[in-house]
Amino acid sequence: MSGESAKSLGKGSAPPGPVPEGLIRLYSMRFCPFAERTRLVLKAKGIRHEVININLKNKPEWFFEKNPVGLVPVLENSQGQLICESVITCEYLDEAYPGKKLLPGDPYEKACQKMVFELFSKVPPLVGNFIRNKDKEDCSGLKEEIRKEFSKLEEVLTNKKTTFFGGNSLSMIDYLIWPWFERLEALELNECVDHTPKLKLWMAAMKGDPTVSALLPGMKSFSGFLKLYLQNSVEACDYGL
Amino acid sequence: MSGESAKSLGKGSAPPGPVPEGLIRLYSMRFCPFAERTRLVLKAKGIRHEVININLKNKPEWFFEKNPVGLVPVLENSQGQLICESVITCEYLDEAYPGKKLLPGDPYEKACQKMVFELFSKVPPLVGNFIRNKDKEDCSGLKEEIRKEFSKLEEVLTNKKTTFFGGNSLSMIDYLIWPWFERLEALELNECVDHTPKLKLWMAAMKGDPTVSALLPGMKSFSGFLKLYLQNSVEACDYGL
Repeated sequence: MSGESAKSLGKGSAPPGPVPEGLIRLYSMRFCPFAERTRLVLKAKGIRHEVININLKNKPEWFFEKNPVGLVPVLENSQGQLICESVITCEYLDEAYPGKKLLPGDPYEKACQKMVFELFSKVPPLVGNFIRNKDKEDCSGLKEEIRKEFSKLEEVLTNKKTTFFGGNSLSMIDYLIWPWFERLEALELNECVDHTPKLKLWMAAMKGDPTVSALLPGMKSFSGFLKLYLQNSVEACDYGL
Repeated sequence: MSGESAKSLGKGSAPPGPVPEGLIRLYSMRFCPFAERTRLVLKAKGIRHEVININLKNKPEWFFEKNPVGLVPVLENSQGQLICESVITCEYLDEAYPGKKLLPGDPYEKACQKMVFELFSKVPPLVGNFIRNKDKEDCSGLKEEIRKEFSKLEEVLTNKKTTFFGGNSLSMIDYLIWPWFERLEALELNECVDHTPKLKLWMAAMKGDPTVSALLPGMKSFSGFLKLYLQNSVEACDYGL
């Protein structure tokens, strides 16, 4: 939908007007894994939306009125309601919009997805840590920690005997954790799934999903983005445009 | 319900049998704020349940089969399904059982409760940090940090102009954050709400709730428990019985 590949708005930009009726707006950043969760859910459910990219290295003053902590993703609907935090935005979209439900209706199955998510919870900070230190020091310890977290997820797939984390079809939990796996190659962390064959198969199956594969090309410039981002360049968020 | 004030089970204890039909079992610990969330929800919804207290300083071997990370709360139902992590247990109970819904049905209202919960998220680790250090060093910096977190919650109540965090009646978000406020007095942290008058009024209103007030007497021995707990005493969890 409109805006996905638009240049980001930065300091001094004019605040966007109200969200048109029948549309929902996502404040995003093209390479942000958290915002990608929301983009995956919007696409998977076929929700009409527009995207406004935010320059996270040069944030617009008005953006803090959308989210006081200044992070993406943020959703804004035509009633001016604002929803922050990636998981909260995803659950909101799943509940507020018709179409395929990504979270199971059964309370126990839903709880299971949340427990898997809990098992995954150490991955984003570990990967973030790796990104900040990979060019400065030996990261073999960090890689080992990431592998350990991945083996917990491998165990889930082994016990469940299913292709995806919620069963044999893709559901919310898969979308919520996917963005970190999508970036493994660009981060030269692919070796971390060497000993988790079921996780590897899951990754291959994910790439076959139309929603996931539609967003894949956007990641082509991830490495270029990352280099600039780590240099705190205000050009980072628009890399490749 | 049965077991709330029963002695805790420790290493060498016999694993409990299956959960009887029509009942749900909570693995708990009398003084644990996370398990208290689940106890509040069980009570608020009037769910028939039994409680098995776990000696967290001398955990039964079999308990790791209920939760591999060995933490309470854990729910077990008569089908043998296990649900871990306090927030997940609370949402599960609210969805799986009839009676008063503690989470709003409206997706935006529900998202708002989760955003408030996010604002609260730094409080448990800060209070935990305070507990571990209060007898060892000057904690005025930590107290200041806690106050800062509380002022974010004060702002929510100020903007909402309601008594509780979800509106003018008590709902899920209030129960999820209450256990930390209940312990402020015993921790000599009451001064942290001195500059947040609306939060103070909320605390008073909470104490008037029949569910909250039914659990209050159990906290009487909290200080005694804490002293032993910090000494790693295997008697801590049964303090006062």
